[in-house]
Amino acid sequence: MNVRESGIDEGISEVIVTTRSASGTFNAAPIGIITTTNEHFVKLYKRSRTFTNVQETKKLAANITSDTVLFVKAALDNLGEAHYSSLSSFPVLKEANSWILFQAVLAEKSTEYSLFQLTPLTIKINRKELKAINRGRNAVIEATILATRYLRVNDEREKEELKKQMARYAKIAEKCGGHREKEAIRILEEKPFVIV
Amino acid sequence: MNVRESGIDEGISEVIVTTRSASGTFNAAPIGIITTTNEHFVKLYKRSRTFTNVQETKKLAANITSDTVLFVKAALDNLGEAHYSSLSSFPVLKEANSWILFQAVLAEKSTEYSLFQLTPLTIKINRKELKAINRGRNAVIEATILATRYLRVNDEREKEELKKQMARYAKIAEKCGGHREKEAIRILEEKPFVIV
Repeated sequence: MNVRESGIDEGISEVIVTTRSASGTFNAAPIGIITTTNEHFVKLYKRSRTFTNVQETKKLAANITSDTVLFVKAALDNLGEAHYSSLSSFPVLKEANSWILFQAVLAEKSTEYSLFQLTPLTIKINRKELKAINRGRNAVIEATILATRYLRVNDEREKEELKKQMARYAKIAEKCGGHREKEAIRILEEKPFVIV
Repeated sequence: MNVRESGIDEGISEVIVTTRSASGTFNAAPIGIITTTNEHFVKLYKRSRTFTNVQETKKLAANITSDTVLFVKAALDNLGEAHYSSLSSFPVLKEANSWILFQAVLAEKSTEYSLFQLTPLTIKINRKELKAINRGRNAVIEATILATRYLRVNDEREKEELKKQMARYAKIAEKCGGHREKEAIRILEEKPFVIV
């Protein structure tokens, strides 16, 4: 089993984490998998669905993809059932390049977050997609991170600053991205916080 | 011949462009390949070695890689001969995931830049590497773009602003990157403009 070959490497890998509640409801959220030389961790926000689901099932799947539309939708909407497939009876995203099913064990907790250590249970490569670096792709990721932060803060000044930064990333995505990045930005723009 | 499968997709793909002068000297530089639905272009700075070489040979190779150390070295140093391999007798980078040899035809010129239209001649996939999105990887690319801009501007205020932005990206690279991103930042930091 080679986690690295599936796309998860040293540092923080931005993936879409899929989970299932005890009652069987699926969830997807963009999350960073933290990888040191030999270990994997994930920091989960306690008020998130992902956290509750991981507490209930002790499992999560990392979906490796470069499709920015999936990131934006997973962050701000619910991904419909049609997006899901199954790996060892656990929900994963059909369109991902690879999947890693992890066992999650609580390692550390603070007031707002909990850190889980991850051990790979199953790895599957769906398709080996080669992609050149694209500044627009990461601009969408940065804008999505800012958008989720925007939804959590109350300070009006901070909100204004976040909107400004989002607009800057939207510009890079429009300039350097392909049609998926442009669609991702359109989805962000339709949200209440409106980038423009 | 499938350009998309080799990693070059719609939008601007950040690659390392290798070229050869008429007298046979190799050069490597990080450059964006602009791709519309069916066409590829590249905008070359007229005072660059890449521009001179393309004028002389009418050819360039796009090397698709996610190795940020190669990007930084190609931007600010010379890549040594040991880095090169050959595709249809044209210099390419040994460590790249894939190579596309393009024919380059002048499409438009302005005072500082010339736009060339690119037609693929040969495509070769070296290895299909799967990589999750990493914020640190793109932070190195952004810092490298700022570093090359820094070397071209004279205004002290602008230089200060560029340094500030580079420091912000260096922080993301340290936080989210793997060992190659950390090494890339170290190379940038050793340069005269010192990020810190």
